[in-house]
Amino acid sequence: MRRRKRKQAQAGDYSRKHCTNGGRPVSETPHLTFDIDQPGMSKGHLVVPKGADCEALPLPVFSLNKGEGPRLLITGGCHGNELEGPIVARRLIDWLPEAQTCGRVIVVPVLNPPAVQAWSRNTVVDGLNLNRVFPGRADGSVTERIADAVSRLLLPMADIVFDLHSFGPNWDLPPSSTTHPIADADLMAKTVRMAEAFKFPMTLVWEHHDTSGMFDMLAHSQGKVFVCAELGGGTVGSEALAIYEVGVHNALIALGLVEGKAERPAFRQHKSNQTLETRSSDELKSPARGIFEPRCSVLDEVKQGDLIGILHPMDSLSANSIDLRASTTSIVCAIRSGAHVDVNEVVALLARPQSLKIYGG
Amino acid sequence: MRRRKRKQAQAGDYSRKHCTNGGRPVSETPHLTFDIDQPGMSKGHLVVPKGADCEALPLPVFSLNKGEGPRLLITGGCHGNELEGPIVARRLIDWLPEAQTCGRVIVVPVLNPPAVQAWSRNTVVDGLNLNRVFPGRADGSVTERIADAVSRLLLPMADIVFDLHSFGPNWDLPPSSTTHPIADADLMAKTVRMAEAFKFPMTLVWEHHDTSGMFDMLAHSQGKVFVCAELGGGTVGSEALAIYEVGVHNALIALGLVEGKAERPAFRQHKSNQTLETRSSDELKSPARGIFEPRCSVLDEVKQGDLIGILHPMDSLSANSIDLRASTTSIVCAIRSGAHVDVNEVVALLARPQSLKIYGG
Repeated sequence: MRRRKRKQAQAGDYSRKHCTNGGRPVSETPHLTFDIDQPGMSKGHLVVPKGADCEALPLPVFSLNKGEGPRLLITGGCHGNELEGPIVARRLIDWLPEAQTCGRVIVVPVLNPPAVQAWSRNTVVDGLNLNRVFPGRADGSVTERIADAVSRLLLPMADIVFDLHSFGPNWDLPPSSTTHPIADADLMAKTVRMAEAFKFPMTLVWEHHDTSGMFDMLAHSQGKVFVCAELGGGTVGSEALAIYEVGVHNALIALGLVEGKAERPAFRQHKSNQTLETRSSDELKSPARGIFEPRCSVLDEVKQGDLIGILHPMDSLSANSIDLRASTTSIVCAIRSGAHVDVNEVVALLARPQSLKIYGG
Repeated sequence: MRRRKRKQAQAGDYSRKHCTNGGRPVSETPHLTFDIDQPGMSKGHLVVPKGADCEALPLPVFSLNKGEGPRLLITGGCHGNELEGPIVARRLIDWLPEAQTCGRVIVVPVLNPPAVQAWSRNTVVDGLNLNRVFPGRADGSVTERIADAVSRLLLPMADIVFDLHSFGPNWDLPPSSTTHPIADADLMAKTVRMAEAFKFPMTLVWEHHDTSGMFDMLAHSQGKVFVCAELGGGTVGSEALAIYEVGVHNALIALGLVEGKAERPAFRQHKSNQTLETRSSDELKSPARGIFEPRCSVLDEVKQGDLIGILHPMDSLSANSIDLRASTTSIVCAIRSGAHVDVNEVVALLARPQSLKIYGG
């Protein structure tokens, strides 16, 4: 496409001069600009203090306090190229004041404004992934200071956390609620039940090894129920957003925060939902460098030998394309969009029905 | 999503050390490594000479020479985050040898390997947009040298060009064949007819002002028929790729290069196709800075006042979201995926049925 403006050209926008605190006096510790404990609805900012790399950063915060009941924190915009979360969070703020009957809900639509503005997974200023630096550091770089502010001021106010992610622009994934395996069996069972309450097409128990510094690891270590909603991948479109909003509504009903009847949203041709698990060994990796062509769709059931995708070497047209096939009966839970990949880069995640015995769910 | 590898971390891969010519002797002028005029199928490389910024760059080239008939050049991978083109081109190379009955087809699946490998619209090495530097410069930076090599060695071998683009990851668009308005009425009519032969859901005559240095401008100035296929946007998935391949096959049938009966591919719920035109004044721009939420889908017909999308200011939750509405009866031909946008950034392209009188099509 011929585009006049380039988002990437703006990647440096969040330089020192743009990270302001709106003229408010600079504080050296993270703080809220409003009384979040007041009854009813309130709005303001969580101010992440300035540091060597950036001025103070105000994160917009919404709070709706209706007394006794579940204490829920909803966050979006951890990764700047996963914008389903901020949009669904922003919609939620419109209808929650009419709908919420008890408890407390705090919503932070955008945890990482510099990344969102740059349409970048990581923070542009320091190159860090916010979801790998929890609990953060008060004297660290801006990403670490965001994590520190959230960990210290907002997380203690919640017993349950919904962190609204997506698979970003270069994967396809059905709308899903996910959790990592948790050593504490009771917390694991509670978390899986909470995840299933979204009634998304897929609930996924996802084992992988790169979990150090993740927000959910911190929350789980404090005994909190933390569900990561992975709201699809690819284009952020109106149809998918409608599904996501239904899922969040379902989860709020399950918590008793709002009244209503849960709906099971349809996704493409799939009307059922299922709880799956995937392990590191279920990752399908590219056997060579080249362009990956997806040849199946998410939620497809595949048998041993079925075609998942094709790897096209692109350095020479004399090199044959390579078929990538399923090694066992599986369900395709995520597949890479057409992209240039390196050898051993993950191009699909396969899964199987969750073993109920493990988690008592 | 938790991804272990970051494409952006690889953006610098195409440094001097990676731009090699595979051990072949370096030449100071662009050249082909094989005899492209030989009858039948041949494969090799178009070597873009080394420069101050990069070693020589070999672009894989496929040629199928069946004597008299149309002379067609098909190119993909001009922009590195539009990978539908390279995949469809690569598939074409598999079936064309069996199917082509006359004429000559040259296929270059990836015009800009450094951009494709970095999943970047522009070339990483020099930051340039390949589709803004034609006809290029022999002594320029690597993007300009690619344009120069293609303009001097490949373009003269073709009377017709299909350049396979897409709208990239952060727009939605139906599979389309497009052309800019052309001053030469005969060439315009021929080009629109060629574009319509793809039988995509949309044929689009697209007026905009930022056309200097575009590949089609160069080809049109030489009297060639040049169609830009804009193969959708967002996730590169298997269903969309199937539509794209049908469209290219239809166009080859129309040229008489292959035999067969054209099909009209269905796209989502739309089974018709239409020829539309859009002008600069049809661009819908964001009235403020914030996250754009699409609220309609491509090919939707909208009337004056219908909701196109919502702009959510994100710096403060006290600022109201802003509805963006259609100013007149239109068809939505492209809509921005959910993304952070600046004030006056384009978020949708509206269109109307093409005025047949203008182009005699």
